[in-house]
Amino acid sequence: MLSKSQVKYIQSLHHKKFRDQEGAFIAEGNKVVSELLQSGQFVCEQLFGEQEWLHDNEILIRKHFSGDLQEVKDFELQKLSALSTASQTLAVFKKMQPKEIVVKGRITLLLDTIQDPGNLGTIIRIADWFGIASIICSIDTADQYNPKVVQSTMGSLARVNIIYTDLQKFIHKNNTIKIYAAALNGKNVNTLKGLKEGFIVIGNESKGISPELMELATEKITIPRIGNAESLNAAVATGIILSHL
Amino acid sequence: MLSKSQVKYIQSLHHKKFRDQEGAFIAEGNKVVSELLQSGQFVCEQLFGEQEWLHDNEILIRKHFSGDLQEVKDFELQKLSALSTASQTLAVFKKMQPKEIVVKGRITLLLDTIQDPGNLGTIIRIADWFGIASIICSIDTADQYNPKVVQSTMGSLARVNIIYTDLQKFIHKNNTIKIYAAALNGKNVNTLKGLKEGFIVIGNESKGISPELMELATEKITIPRIGNAESLNAAVATGIILSHL
Repeated sequence: MLSKSQVKYIQSLHHKKFRDQEGAFIAEGNKVVSELLQSGQFVCEQLFGEQEWLHDNEILIRKHFSGDLQEVKDFELQKLSALSTASQTLAVFKKMQPKEIVVKGRITLLLDTIQDPGNLGTIIRIADWFGIASIICSIDTADQYNPKVVQSTMGSLARVNIIYTDLQKFIHKNNTIKIYAAALNGKNVNTLKGLKEGFIVIGNESKGISPELMELATEKITIPRIGNAESLNAAVATGIILSHL
Repeated sequence: MLSKSQVKYIQSLHHKKFRDQEGAFIAEGNKVVSELLQSGQFVCEQLFGEQEWLHDNEILIRKHFSGDLQEVKDFELQKLSALSTASQTLAVFKKMQPKEIVVKGRITLLLDTIQDPGNLGTIIRIADWFGIASIICSIDTADQYNPKVVQSTMGSLARVNIIYTDLQKFIHKNNTIKIYAAALNGKNVNTLKGLKEGFIVIGNESKGISPELMELATEKITIPRIGNAESLNAAVATGIILSHL
């Protein structure tokens, strides 16, 4: 049985304020929890699982976890879960200090106010697929440790370095790097083919890139439209741009 | 004030069974409702809006709507809404009969068991962006009229022709069309450049394309991976593939 204080602690981690305070976050689901455990990037503090999950993952757990293991029932997991449908496992991990960001000779993603957690998680997963080492997020971008973000990264959180900072200041500090801004009226994305170094800037889901940031762009880039949709989802646009490099 | 029977009717449309029975569906949010109204593709039966929304959209409403208009309060909209956060407007539309599918000389999307409504909606929006006229869904793909699908199409629902059928039978009936299946071990997606006719098959979020369907593929195609993510989101993969044609 879970204690009241355990439930309260885990539920508090649904909120950024408490995640920041505790330096911890929750991950849910077999795929995400096993990937984060195996990555060795995050220290796991608490692990909850249904009997079946604990049984099926005995070796993984023995190898990668030495903390406070607890068997729980499905209705208990539902109480802890930040998702609409809980899965068979939930873990509390310590946050990781971001590593030093290297931008020279690399493609780096800059996210300007991506607010939807699902979009951010999907973008982290895309970055991992295309071997992007770092993502620089504006301060008002969704929190990488939001449970829905963690869920939609599908484990890629452990392999992409993410920092939150003022994007304009970051660009000024790294002023030798060219800036490619996703926009509706730029050069065809396929002109980026072979690009080895640069900042790729992706804007907010409805407002796009802020005017101040757009002014700093070396080049605007566009995914050519044939039909009539007004825009593309931010994560889809990121995937398309990175696939053309 | 909304009547109890109105609330009950709208809430019933959250479920596929009743949408099928009534031949109707709900759309929520300023963007989606205005696009569907303007499209002229769907007959709007009922329109609910907060005072401010009705005021701001007076011309649109007068031009495109002649049914049962009703001013509602925010807490009433929340009751009707199938989304976690209701917006300022909600409308009931009649479903549309799909138009005849033309596959000759065209790129057509085939979706094999896309189950996440957000993914399906995003795919419909991507298809619209790239000028794809038709999407053929397997019977167990999410319902195009699911409120979350409608929401994430952002209005593109009116511009893409969608049918639900047995994909194997559909392929057999159109056996002159080549089949390109998204897979993890195929040819580089950029070899499709310039393709003018074909079926692009996208598989389920976790299981991919079913073996029976994969066997029918003329060619497997792959988005080259540089990093370590295990897979890409189905909608992102669709966007990348279509952008390379």
